This record gives sequence, structure tokens and C-alpha cells, in this order.
Amino acid sequence: MVVDEVPEPEPGPGQVLVRTLACGICGSDLHAVRHLGKVAQLQAGRPAGGEQLSTERDLVMGHEFCAEIVELGPATTGALPVGSTVCSLPITFDADGLGTVGYSHRYPGGYGELMVLNEQLLLPVPAGTPVTHVALTEPMAVGRHAVARAGLEGGEVLLVVGCGPIGLAVIAALRHDGRGPIIAADFSPRRRALAEQLGADVVVDPGQVSPFDTWQDVAWPDGVDRFDPLLRLQGVSPDPGVVFECVGVPGVLQQVIDGAMRRTRIMVVGVCMEPDTILPLTGIGKEIEMRFVLGYEPDEFAGTLDAIVEGVLDVDPLVTGQVGIDGIPGAFAALADPESHAKIVVVP
Amino acid sequence: MVVDEVPEPEPGPGQVLVRTLACGICGSDLHAVRHLGKVAQLQAGRPAGGEQLSTERDLVMGHEFCAEIVELGPATTGALPVGSTVCSLPITFDADGLGTVGYSHRYPGGYGELMVLNEQLLLPVPAGTPVTHVALTEPMAVGRHAVARAGLEGGEVLLVVGCGPIGLAVIAALRHDGRGPIIAADFSPRRRALAEQLGADVVVDPGQVSPFDTWQDVAWPDGVDRFDPLLRLQGVSPDPGVVFECVGVPGVLQQVIDGAMRRTRIMVVGVCMEPDTILPLTGIGKEIEMRFVLGYEPDEFAGTLDAIVEGVLDVDPLVTGQVGIDGIPGAFAALADPESHAKIVVVP
Repeated sequence: MVVDEVPEPEPGPGQVLVRTLACGICGSDLHAVRHLGKVAQLQAGRPAGGEQLSTERDLVMGHEFCAEIVELGPATTGALPVGSTVCSLPITFDADGLGTVGYSHRYPGGYGELMVLNEQLLLPVPAGTPVTHVALTEPMAVGRHAVARAGLEGGEVLLVVGCGPIGLAVIAALRHDGRGPIIAADFSPRRRALAEQLGADVVVDPGQVSPFDTWQDVAWPDGVDRFDPLLRLQGVSPDPGVVFECVGVPGVLQQVIDGAMRRTRIMVVGVCMEPDTILPLTGIGKEIEMRFVLGYEPDEFAGTLDAIVEGVLDVDPLVTGQVGIDGIPGAFAALADPESHAKIVVVP
Repeated sequence: MVVDEVPEPEPGPGQVLVRTLACGICGSDLHAVRHLGKVAQLQAGRPAGGEQLSTERDLVMGHEFCAEIVELGPATTGALPVGSTVCSLPITFDADGLGTVGYSHRYPGGYGELMVLNEQLLLPVPAGTPVTHVALTEPMAVGRHAVARAGLEGGEVLLVVGCGPIGLAVIAALRHDGRGPIIAADFSPRRRALAEQLGADVVVDPGQVSPFDTWQDVAWPDGVDRFDPLLRLQGVSPDPGVVFECVGVPGVLQQVIDGAMRRTRIMVVGVCMEPDTILPLTGIGKEIEMRFVLGYEPDEFAGTLDAIVEGVLDVDPLVTGQVGIDGIPGAFAALADPESHAKIVVVP
């Protein structure tokens, strides 16, 4: 990772040139510094076409941003004039197909000073909204999407495993939807404190107490012996349980399956980039359901920005640090320690 | 596996002694002859209590049966008199907890001449119903349950991977519910022919054609380029896809994930008894959903028996062989060849 001068990007038809006002540092970027090939593999899951990443070429990362329009490219409408503060899905498209802003050799991301965005995807940001908050739209939308895909019907007892930025985004989205009770687990005291601040009802240190025991205790009605083998024949079951797996490290999925109640829905939000081994027999015995999720829909992204702008989604506790461009390499190192930071935002 | 004399089982309070009229040979039993410890592990997924299997003790297997009441035990009501033909969930319970008929050292299964069943669970079978058909209630209920848990809403394009008895039961249940189109894949010509007979619309030999290509071709509307990278942004998607994985061998789950369309629901019906390695990244990139299923609910079992009795679920093509008790070891060997048999039913 180097701080360097690169050529200014140029907006094509339907595109605008913007100046980065703020850009969050994402865990995927921490991974990508070492394992860019795996991020490329994730992109390859999409339909063919569009740009494929190469580990041989340079990349300006950064896909959680707030920006200001500095130049309207050809064939734009100017619906939002130069000077407007904007947010956008980190996606661009042109005649060659789709690109991901910050994971593209053609479209530099928000760790640089200038980006190119598609005018059609721009979302206006009202004056006075803190730009560091707007930069958190993207990761918070990931939490919103994971909660939407969980298809909650009410009454579920919820467990969030891992309270890094994505686990915290899930907790905030659950709280915003009025869901609960929410049990949250993380080894880090700092992250547990943030989980409580964002809306967890119970926080657990897995080094001390099994989060699955705590979750099952909350789920089962008082006085029911959950180990009574006749319960299933009698049709007695607890409220459905949903676990949000927000760690993304090999082995955690099986830990969740082992700790899960019967018919638990596991939302796989953490992005595990290694092969992972599971014991299907355990999942079968409990009739476990696993839903893998990624990203967000455009309307979820826009709704998250609205909630941040209106202040009903309070992301301020998440912003634990702010650096300039020169500070990015140091920030990447600092983020390795869960005690020191949740989210560091780059403000060029 | 030996043919031998064992002590006659004795009905306890609320139980009846029955004589086996017919008992299907199940693939789980073929596994269990070599890997009883793994079946014990599956049982261990249940709440604690009840009997645990030991590889040190003998076992009379057989849990897909039709039987005749020969003696009412103490504290029974006699609602169904001696001589009645009955079917039952392969479950017993007593003061010591739950037992599985055929996977229990206390409760011998239907490969023997006599069994003990709980009166409360008995389902009457009308005179004239072929006993070999009634014996197929249990495996067909597994298909019924897998289809029910899939939560189909109509319009899904369905792929059944593996057309052994469980895959065929899934196909029959889908057809019985009026679902389709159904694509079915198996290497065996005999099984593909049975799949067509039971209701598959298209059958595929995976040695010749990718079942996933065939399934996607059916799913996508004519004229849509499914590889157009802008489709997702434009909200264009095919009918939802559901795959029933009915093989249960390590590696098949990842093959299904690799071949799946975006947001495919994979019903894991095949019981894989080994650890299995998946690439979560592929599942995440496509937002795959996996639902593990096991067994059936009591009402699904009873509904399956009704459908067989009424003849609306035609199981006759599945019964490809019939043996006496002395023929069981030979039948186990014969079932290893998918070309020779679907289901062999023991008629003592």
C-alpha cells in the first residue's frame, strides 16, 4: 500500500467527476490488501461481463463514500449541479459493462481525491449532514439487507455473532426495525459496548459464557425443560431463532450449527474467503437453514441514507477515528486491533 | 448381517404387539450396516434423553412398515382391535423416553416378524390396500416433508439431483402438489425412467448434459441474455429456482452451489454422513439459501398414507422387488446397483 499520484479519472457519457469528502475503511479492503484474488473470485460470482480484477495492476480502493460533484461529464442532465454533496452505490457502468468503485482498475475509489460516478445512481445529501455519517451508508446498508433477507415475522430471538462493523450494522438495522430481543457476542469489550449502544439487549463475552446458551435461555419459555425428548411430538417449540453470523472465518459456521436450536435460520453475513468444512449431519438433525447474503438492493441503500440523514439511524458511535490520505496505511494497521477502533473514516 | 432367532418383544403400557406384513429396505439401513455410529450421531442431534445406539449390541432394523395387530398390551384402549392392519410413525415412547423403531436395541424393526408399537400412533389401513404400498408411506413422507419445507409459492423451476428412492419421493410429492416444471438428474437410465414415471418433466443424464444448464434454460425467459451484467440493476430475474439435493455424498453440495442460479434455494434432503467442504464465497456471491431437512411431521406422515390408500400417490412403480426374511442380506447387496432396483420390500 502506497500513497502516490495517479492520473485523474475522466467522466464518460452519463458520468460525473466527484471529489471525495469522506470514505470509510472496510474490512473487505483489509482482506483485499493480502487476498485480492479472492475479492476477484467474489465478483466472478456475478454474471459474466464487466471488469475482472488483476493482482498485477494497481487499485485505488474505497467504496463507502460521501462526495461532491466537481464536473458534469458528457450526456449528463445536471439534475444535481456541480457543488452538490452526493452518495452513491459503489457501482459504475459504461459500454464495457459493470465496475465496482474501489475494486476496479478503471474506477478509482474514495481513498483517492477524485472518483467517477454514474449520474443515474447519485443520491443527494442535504446540507448539514455530517459527511463521515454519510460515508457509513454502505456498510449500514449491508446490515439492512441482511435483516431484510432474514424475513423476520416477529417473536424471533436474535443472536448476532461478531460485533465488528458488519455485526454492528446488523444490530442497528434490527433495532431500527424494532426487532428483539437481540443477543450480541464478541470477545472485545469495546465492541460489546458499541453493540449495547447500537441496540443489543444482552451482550455476551464468548470467552466467559456460551452465547448459544444465553440465546436459548431467552428463547425458551420459563418452566419448559428444553431437553424433554417428547417436546417435538407434542408440538412444543420455542420462538424461532435467527443467528446472524458476522465473523466470516472458517469453522465459525459449524460452531453456529452446533450451538443452534432446532430450525434456526443462520444468516451468513460474514464473508469467509477460505473453504469451510461443515458437518451436514448436524444441520440435518436440527433442520437448520442457512441464507448467504451479500450487499444490498438499491432501495435498501437509499433507505439507509435517508435514515442516516434523518438521524433515526445513529451511526456516530461507529466513527471512532478519522485520518487524511497519508494516514490510511496506519489506519489499516490500527484496525487490526478490535479494542482501538470500529470504523476509521478517511477525510482527504 | 445375520438371520437369527431373537426373543419376542413384549408390549408395555399403551403398546401393542404387531406382526410385520411388509417392510421397505431403506438406504439409511444400507449405510447403517457399515456406519451405525453415524446414525447414532444423527439421533444425538435430538434433545437429550431416549435411547442411544451402541455398535456393540444387536439391532433388528426396518422402519418402513405395514403391520397387523396381534396383541393389545396393558392400558390400551383397543380402539383398533386385534387383526387390524396398521401403519405407524417408526417411533415408540415409554417411561425411558423415545425410541426409533428399527434403530433401537429395545424396539425391533420390521425386518423381524414381530414389533412393538405405541397404540396412540397407530394409523388404520383399509382392507384391500396393498401392504407393500403402505410400507412406502415412510420414505414418501420424507419427500412430502422436503417439499413442504421448501415453501414453494408457484412458478419455481425445480431441479431434483439424484433419483434414488428419496429423490423419487420428492418428485412424486412435487407432482402430487401440481408443482413444476420438474427437471430430474441421475446417471442411471433405470432411475431416470422411474423419475419420468413419477412425474419429472425433463430427465437429464449428468454424464451427457449439465443438469444445471438444462434447469437454467427452462428458468430464463426466451430472449433474455442471462449473462447481461446489468440485469440485476434492472431488476430482471428468472423465476426463483429450487434444487432438491438427494444424493448426500461429500462434494455434491458445492457442485449444486456452483451450478445454482442467483438466490437458489437448495433443499438438502440427501443425508451426507461425512464432513463436507463448501466455498462460502460462492454461496455469498449468489445469495444461496440452504435448508437441511429430516424426516416428517406426524400430519405429513398421515397425509402420505391417505394419498397412498386413495391411490392418488401411485407408489407401485417404486416396488421393484420383494423378498422374505432370508432374502434380506441378498437384497442389501442387490440395492447397491441402481440399475437393478428402486425399492425392495421385505414380506416375512
